[in-house]
Amino acid sequence: MMALKDYTKEQLVTLKAELEKEYNEFKAKGLKLDMSRGKPGADQLALSNALLDVLTSKDFEQGSVGSSEMRNYGIITGIPECRKLFSDLLGVSADNIIVCGNSSLNMMFDYITQCMLTGSDGTPWKDQGKIKFLCPSPGYDRHFAICQYYAMELITVPMTGEGPDMDVVEELIKDSSVKGMFCVPKYSNPTGETYSRETVDRIAKMKPAAKDFRIIWDNAYIIHDLKDETDHLDNIFDILKKYDNEDMVIEFTSTSKITFPGAGVACLAASDKNIEIIKNRMQFQTIGHDKINQLRHVKFFGSVDGILRHMQLHKAILAPKFDAVINEFDALLSEYEIASWTKPNGGYFISFDVMPGTAKRVGQLCKEAGVTLTTVGATYPYGIDPQDKNIRIAPSFPPVDELITATRLLCICVKLAATEKLLG
Amino acid sequence: MMALKDYTKEQLVTLKAELEKEYNEFKAKGLKLDMSRGKPGADQLALSNALLDVLTSKDFEQGSVGSSEMRNYGIITGIPECRKLFSDLLGVSADNIIVCGNSSLNMMFDYITQCMLTGSDGTPWKDQGKIKFLCPSPGYDRHFAICQYYAMELITVPMTGEGPDMDVVEELIKDSSVKGMFCVPKYSNPTGETYSRETVDRIAKMKPAAKDFRIIWDNAYIIHDLKDETDHLDNIFDILKKYDNEDMVIEFTSTSKITFPGAGVACLAASDKNIEIIKNRMQFQTIGHDKINQLRHVKFFGSVDGILRHMQLHKAILAPKFDAVINEFDALLSEYEIASWTKPNGGYFISFDVMPGTAKRVGQLCKEAGVTLTTVGATYPYGIDPQDKNIRIAPSFPPVDELITATRLLCICVKLAATEKLLG
Repeated sequence: MMALKDYTKEQLVTLKAELEKEYNEFKAKGLKLDMSRGKPGADQLALSNALLDVLTSKDFEQGSVGSSEMRNYGIITGIPECRKLFSDLLGVSADNIIVCGNSSLNMMFDYITQCMLTGSDGTPWKDQGKIKFLCPSPGYDRHFAICQYYAMELITVPMTGEGPDMDVVEELIKDSSVKGMFCVPKYSNPTGETYSRETVDRIAKMKPAAKDFRIIWDNAYIIHDLKDETDHLDNIFDILKKYDNEDMVIEFTSTSKITFPGAGVACLAASDKNIEIIKNRMQFQTIGHDKINQLRHVKFFGSVDGILRHMQLHKAILAPKFDAVINEFDALLSEYEIASWTKPNGGYFISFDVMPGTAKRVGQLCKEAGVTLTTVGATYPYGIDPQDKNIRIAPSFPPVDELITATRLLCICVKLAATEKLLG
Repeated sequence: MMALKDYTKEQLVTLKAELEKEYNEFKAKGLKLDMSRGKPGADQLALSNALLDVLTSKDFEQGSVGSSEMRNYGIITGIPECRKLFSDLLGVSADNIIVCGNSSLNMMFDYITQCMLTGSDGTPWKDQGKIKFLCPSPGYDRHFAICQYYAMELITVPMTGEGPDMDVVEELIKDSSVKGMFCVPKYSNPTGETYSRETVDRIAKMKPAAKDFRIIWDNAYIIHDLKDETDHLDNIFDILKKYDNEDMVIEFTSTSKITFPGAGVACLAASDKNIEIIKNRMQFQTIGHDKINQLRHVKFFGSVDGILRHMQLHKAILAPKFDAVINEFDALLSEYEIASWTKPNGGYFISFDVMPGTAKRVGQLCKEAGVTLTTVGATYPYGIDPQDKNIRIAPSFPPVDELITATRLLCICVKLAATEKLLG
């Protein structure tokens, strides 16, 4: 057992030759494995098949079902039953919930678009010159992409293990061109960390120089536990209330990783004032979202307890997948001291740090041998990981046996890239 | 039988007293009737109840259904099966179709938003100073509202009975700040007219001064016939091709008035170039729309023939409603020569012109007696009908008996308002 850094040059050369042999053996297998996206696997999808049966023509034979006519136009903020369900889930009054279609990403994009064109509360962001957005990183590439699409300047904020580094954030928000921040507060993508009480408190009491500063609180993994030991996240709106700061945060969540990723229901929670502004825009935008699918979800779950029970079924499928990857890492990489990996209590990712300067090479080696990882660098703004070390591992989609094969190849690639690097 | 304009003052006073008596009798009934929006009635909704049964958990027991995994993320342009269906309906290659969620209005809003922020093809509209949009009128209030929301200047273009007055349009587009035009080319909302071959040809060959000019071709009533005699509309993309002008038009349609208004499927058709631009934006916006609902529609209809057969069922319900209103108008109003009304071959509206200067008063009288009409003026930009004469009648929602009652009241109000006006 020896750390790679203590290897002599000769030992490295020998190891490299061994690794290349192992690598080529894998390559010869013609693998085609994918650990790139946080996509539920086929067995997870099957958990919600009965969602398709809870509303049928029989239910509508006598006319309308639910609190109003679900088949027709209308009800722009979502059906009351579904607002209530998300109200119970988020701990926010149903009046402060808007339920939309199948995609919370779409809602976030739309909200940012609204801020650009008509302002979050006042002057449109587009009319304020170059604006900036805080991007706690490693983070979610699709968040960063929205900011980039609108040509904002993305500012990386380091993650600490209990959320973004608030010393850094508190300094940055003194600049009034900094208009907001993307947060995944629970089981963060990809680090798996949950914002601590202190972090949430410091966020809630922020007084940014920009009065129209907005936090996108993407609570995507709110109840997505992997272990019996779960993380606690404070309800942001409870804390904001203490500081009379409720207008600063818009919270989003969805059932994408609860029922069907493509056919779930998404919602936002916001202050009275923000709900009014958003509703005003929505009145120009649509006559209403798919109420039948909202009602399907209400009938399928019955209550938040129903959702929580359902999440236990996901956990039973996902936990062994995470364990499989982590066990391989523990067994195959620990002794070399060239990589570290998270062991999250929830969420969809393992954040995997390899030897600085080798992550891109690892991605390339994996790809050439048939294993697709999340594009290396994607967890940082502009797709550039300054240390070239972070790789996001998404274990949810492949079956366990494929996952083990892919992870073994990945470990070989990590060692090979490190050896190459050390040999210069 | 005498036209109201030929009445003596005494005759008018007598008539007014009679009308007031009739009006008050109606008022005493405490009616609550709604002819305001083009909303399908309960019997129409029931036609599509089986849409809820075509995909159940059984279908997914063996795994995926359709051309790919419909339950998971992905397929941003819509499932191939559904693109094919709309391709057949619109007569446009499936490659030029994007299928989204439940609302074509949302897609139009989104497209205009894209033009504002990132341009239709070049400089963002927001960066081009005050811009203008052509609004053939009477027209659809929700179209006008989108333009108003973005603070465009709305320019009224008169309708001719075969589409917008193209002499006027051809003059207006010489101004490069005129960026586009909203069109409902078939069974137009509210006039029911369909753009003639000549109108479509003149539209297709337009060369606006603004190179980034875009026509929103809202083909909402594409197959929404009310009679055996149907209107013909040329396929705009066929004609545009002749003039090498395909980038100028984005076409929209949906199943909102075919299946469920709240839970249908909407799509757009556009040139290769526009599809690329729209797809590029969508990649930042969402991971995909509700594919299961798209597949439901494909299975429910099977083919365009299936859609056409389904539309016959709508026609059987709607035609008697239109007839009921028109018959009342014919019987109760013709002799007075104070109003005119369309007898459309399709669509959702009767366009009703009362004595100039009395439409608002008619709306008020109806409202006070319990009948809600489309807000008077709403068919014109800024909600201002310059002649105060147009009222949009939406006969689809109420049952026939209510419709007859409401129309009788409406006729009394029209006569009363005219009499008041003539008496000064």
